[in-house]
Amino acid sequence: MKFSSQTLEKAVEALASLPSIGRKTALRLAIHLVQDTTDKTEKISEALTHLATNIKYCKNCYNISDLEICDICTEMYRNKELVCVVESVRDVMAIEETGQYRGLYHVLGGIISPIDGIGPGDLNIEALKTRVGKGEIRELIMAISPTIEGETTTYYISRQLSDFDVEISTIARGVSFGGELEYADELTLGRSIVARTPYGVEKE
Amino acid sequence: MKFSSQTLEKAVEALASLPSIGRKTALRLAIHLVQDTTDKTEKISEALTHLATNIKYCKNCYNISDLEICDICTEMYRNKELVCVVESVRDVMAIEETGQYRGLYHVLGGIISPIDGIGPGDLNIEALKTRVGKGEIRELIMAISPTIEGETTTYYISRQLSDFDVEISTIARGVSFGGELEYADELTLGRSIVARTPYGVEKE
Repeated sequence: MKFSSQTLEKAVEALASLPSIGRKTALRLAIHLVQDTTDKTEKISEALTHLATNIKYCKNCYNISDLEICDICTEMYRNKELVCVVESVRDVMAIEETGQYRGLYHVLGGIISPIDGIGPGDLNIEALKTRVGKGEIRELIMAISPTIEGETTTYYISRQLSDFDVEISTIARGVSFGGELEYADELTLGRSIVARTPYGVEKE
Repeated sequence: MKFSSQTLEKAVEALASLPSIGRKTALRLAIHLVQDTTDKTEKISEALTHLATNIKYCKNCYNISDLEICDICTEMYRNKELVCVVESVRDVMAIEETGQYRGLYHVLGGIISPIDGIGPGDLNIEALKTRVGKGEIRELIMAISPTIEGETTTYYISRQLSDFDVEISTIARGVSFGGELEYADELTLGRSIVARTPYGVEKE
């Protein structure tokens, strides 16, 4: 690309450093911002500056937070005996979105993946052990992706916590609501038959 | 979406104000930036601040520029008798990319589109008349999209300039290089036969 403006070129390069934003998209976004007559550009710039300086990770659950301890951990009405273990902050948001869960979380910050060079030491597993060690947690719900890496992570954590008096469960796998049986993959369909649940009975 | 951090929420909202970036993508980008350990976020923020404050439009051709007059207009070796009229800055970049053009440009800043409420007065057409009026320009190449709005714009400009001693041409329309005939649309294929060029003859 040939730029008539270095300022524009730098903005395009900066935007193109974001994942899934190529140089053509970055150029489109930059030109949109140049042509914008509101204070949109300043707003984005300011929001990102705040993001770089103000964001913390909750010291308890490692969720993204504005304070030392996040809103979820400090909410009074939550069941502090129940902790849902997830891979990332986005999973916390997805589960919160359902409105079905009233426990706390523990964000691992990834899953064990030797190919990507991510070992147990790179994740917040020691902090989870410390949390469980305090004896307040009754159940850990493992809400980890059902991939090989995810299963490995769940298995590793369950082994690490075998000496503690804590129940470990995993979220239910099965055919999606609204999904048609014939389009479900074989593994999911097979498992959903093996792990069938009594009709009309739902766990609290 | 439920956010555990207002800082994150504001960043997501700001990013989602960009065209083609939805809230889910914005969240992915924001979390990417939070997890980034380099100074990427600061770099983007800084580049956008510069974009908002430093960018000018060239007073001659209305291209994006760091200075009052853009690099293209000041380049010595360019043919100042030839001006290519385009819709946007992106078209200038696309034509520059070809390396086939050595004239100057004139950026209209859009095309006449009554549906979008864009009339001739909203475009840099008066400035074009002033430029042509100086008598230095020998030929205007209209490189406008071959849509109804584009053709209208070209027609309007050609009428506005009918009193001036300037040649007006349009870029060639036809079947793409590397395109297969059977996949070309009928209009393009039909026109490309009507507007056939003598074999082996190319304009300078």
